[in-house]
Amino acid sequence: MAKKMAIIATKGALDMAYPPLILASTAASLGWEVKVFFTFYGLQLLRKDLSDIAISPLANPAMPMPVPMPVMVSMLPGMEAMATSMMKSKIKKKGVASLEELRSACIETEVGFIACQMTVDLFEFSRDQFIDGIEYGGAATFLKFAGDTDVCLFI
Amino acid sequence: MAKKMAIIATKGALDMAYPPLILASTAASLGWEVKVFFTFYGLQLLRKDLSDIAISPLANPAMPMPVPMPVMVSMLPGMEAMATSMMKSKIKKKGVASLEELRSACIETEVGFIACQMTVDLFEFSRDQFIDGIEYGGAATFLKFAGDTDVCLFI
Amino acid sequence: MAKKMAIIATKGALDMAYPPLILASTAASLGWEVKVFFTFYGLQLLRKDLSDIAISPLANPAMPMPVPMPVMVSMLPGMEAMATSMMKSKIKKKGVASLEELRSACIETEVGFIACQMTVDLFEFSRDQFIDGIEYGGAATFLKFAGDTDVCLFI
Repeated sequence: MAKKMAIIATKGALDMAYPPLILASTAASLGWEVKVFFTFYGLQLLRKDLSDIAISPLANPAMPMPVPMPVMVSMLPGMEAMATSMMKSKIKKKGVASLEELRSACIETEVGFIACQMTVDLFEFSRDQFIDGIEYGGAATFLKFAGDTDVCLFI
Repeated sequence: MAKKMAIIATKGALDMAYPPLILASTAASLGWEVKVFFTFYGLQLLRKDLSDIAISPLANPAMPMPVPMPVMVSMLPGMEAMATSMMKSKIKKKGVASLEELRSACIETEVGFIACQMTVDLFEFSRDQFIDGIEYGGAATFLKFAGDTDVCLFI
Repeated sequence: MAKKMAIIATKGALDMAYPPLILASTAASLGWEVKVFFTFYGLQLLRKDLSDIAISPLANPAMPMPVPMPVMVSMLPGMEAMATSMMKSKIKKKGVASLEELRSACIETEVGFIACQMTVDLFEFSRDQFIDGIEYGGAATFLKFAGDTDVCLFI
């Protein structure tokens, strides 16, 4: 019987946007049945336009930086944009797939996408902002699927 | 046989305080046996008084903001309090339960709460600060429960 | 049959470096088979020299501080070093094991360490920087192990 995986995707920054999409598309390509529940900031990953997804060099002393950077510099205007642009260019140069490509790979391999209706309401997102073909649901519905999975991750 | 869920709750900010309490109370209301192990900043969720639980707009470019806000502004004095107050008022306006209400729902549905003794000692918390009816234990005890669960999440 | 646990370790700051190493060494000491996949900032935990692992007081309103500290102060030069040094001295004073000790305990109890080759390339780490005796692999290989575990955590 095929393995099953459930992922709860709660983060929306450029770095932590990768793990749910990489793990979901990889598992689906192995023939697993996969569903991802997008909640809190994770909803950002369902937006049609992913170009706003950014990364912050602040409060992450573990981020490898080309030059050591004091906190005071990290918070200067433009540093978030600069870190995002540096990370994106590194991702491209290294041949790593973009978020858009990984999301498409998930859709092609029939990963199920569910948007958390409660946080859609809380953050006042409109369904127009999201890609088509997604379900809307709550924690109870998702847990029923999660309870029968082999791997369930909170990201 | 009833499903089982184990949650390791390590975060104590207003946003990431919600997922363990929502998931635990939802699963318990479905008839699951649920235990939550509070460790590191997650211990904040066991304090009698939850009014200090705050949110930071810093280093979270994925947080939906009413107006785009440069990092330099996010770190001005009072912005953490302002973001916390905005989030709390949005939660209330949208009819989402408060942390206190969710915690009570967990207790009513017999979710087991365990405080990590090692981090209680490390952060010099006193048991007086915590609500009654919780257990104190270590990772080994918790893992024995977790090893027999259907869903185990690290939040 | 022995229980199995898989951990995906993605964080590299001093606080969140602890959970994968504590949980892995504890489970292994209970006789579980454990593998840890280090990816993104989690790769920092495989470096020979762990002395750079730091903690940031920024954007973490849940961190218990000896005195309340406004955000403006948290980002002054030297505050990251000060928070790191305070945390390390507290860890030592309370008799909690250091990261080096926990990592050695993992190795002694035969926890399997796998470095994510994709993020090694992305962050331009060199294998020379890492400890010996680790494997290098990708998400697909790791998921095959994870699919047969009793507990699988994303940290």
